[in-house]
Amino acid sequence: MKILGLDPGLGTTGWGLIEAEGNRIRHLANGQIKSDAKEPLPARLSHLASQLDAIIADEAPDAAAAEEIFVNKNAQSTLKLAQARGALILSVARAGIALGEYAPRLVKKAVVGVGNADKAQIHAMIKVLLPGATVAGPDAADALAVAITHAHHLAAGKSGLR
Amino acid sequence: MKILGLDPGLGTTGWGLIEAEGNRIRHLANGQIKSDAKEPLPARLSHLASQLDAIIADEAPDAAAAEEIFVNKNAQSTLKLAQARGALILSVARAGIALGEYAPRLVKKAVVGVGNADKAQIHAMIKVLLPGATVAGPDAADALAVAITHAHHLAAGKSGLR
Repeated sequence: MKILGLDPGLGTTGWGLIEAEGNRIRHLANGQIKSDAKEPLPARLSHLASQLDAIIADEAPDAAAAEEIFVNKNAQSTLKLAQARGALILSVARAGIALGEYAPRLVKKAVVGVGNADKAQIHAMIKVLLPGATVAGPDAADALAVAITHAHHLAAGKSGLR
Repeated sequence: MKILGLDPGLGTTGWGLIEAEGNRIRHLANGQIKSDAKEPLPARLSHLASQLDAIIADEAPDAAAAEEIFVNKNAQSTLKLAQARGALILSVARAGIALGEYAPRLVKKAVVGVGNADKAQIHAMIKVLLPGATVAGPDAADALAVAITHAHHLAAGKSGLR
């Protein structure tokens, strides 16, 4: 099955697509969608969602997954992220694709083995887990990581769905 | 011109439509869209956005406005609100309608005259400003308040647009 991982962000949203058969995984595609910080919020959300709609139409994923969000020190950034996440999740829902949601700690633990891994460690481990993949950037690496986490959960008979 | 005000919320989203000619305003319609707390987040966002799409299609507003959000004491509620707001703003953007955004203080000041007015005061003042309107609830009252704020700003030659 094709699993789409998402790392939502208003400025940059990472996405990554893997093929999973049980615990065997294979890289299919990944990328980063960017929105223009000079545009108003509605236009930025519309751009992100339209790009994601196009990716979903092209790649026809069977399942999707995204990290949960938490309020961090920078409240304004969190609000931007959350609004972007809402628009992106709407695209997934409207495509009729079920979404798994995972805490960031869980994604790090699934991919790197420890819950406090940093972005560089995730990026490095993605290259090991998905040999031959050219990863578009750290957000695409995070998106692939959440897709892999979802694959592991599905293989273990858990849905990850809320 | 028809102005659509929105008070986004994941559980309940208020909406209110007014007709504005300069500073003269008239109530057209209002209501509250609810999503089922037992449903997963993507389904709830999809329901809210589809209901708003239908309202926009039926009422054909010329402009829209929503309150800005801030992180309050309950961070989890704020994140839910922000994701709902992102999905709803996306509907507005995709309908090609410009969105004005106003701080809650500014909306309260525009409608009640003081920036720290409570919901009951807003509701009461909406009944005065829009005589004859049957307001569906406090969220619909807030939505009408932000529509009125936008009308005042447009009449004063300000766009309210970001």
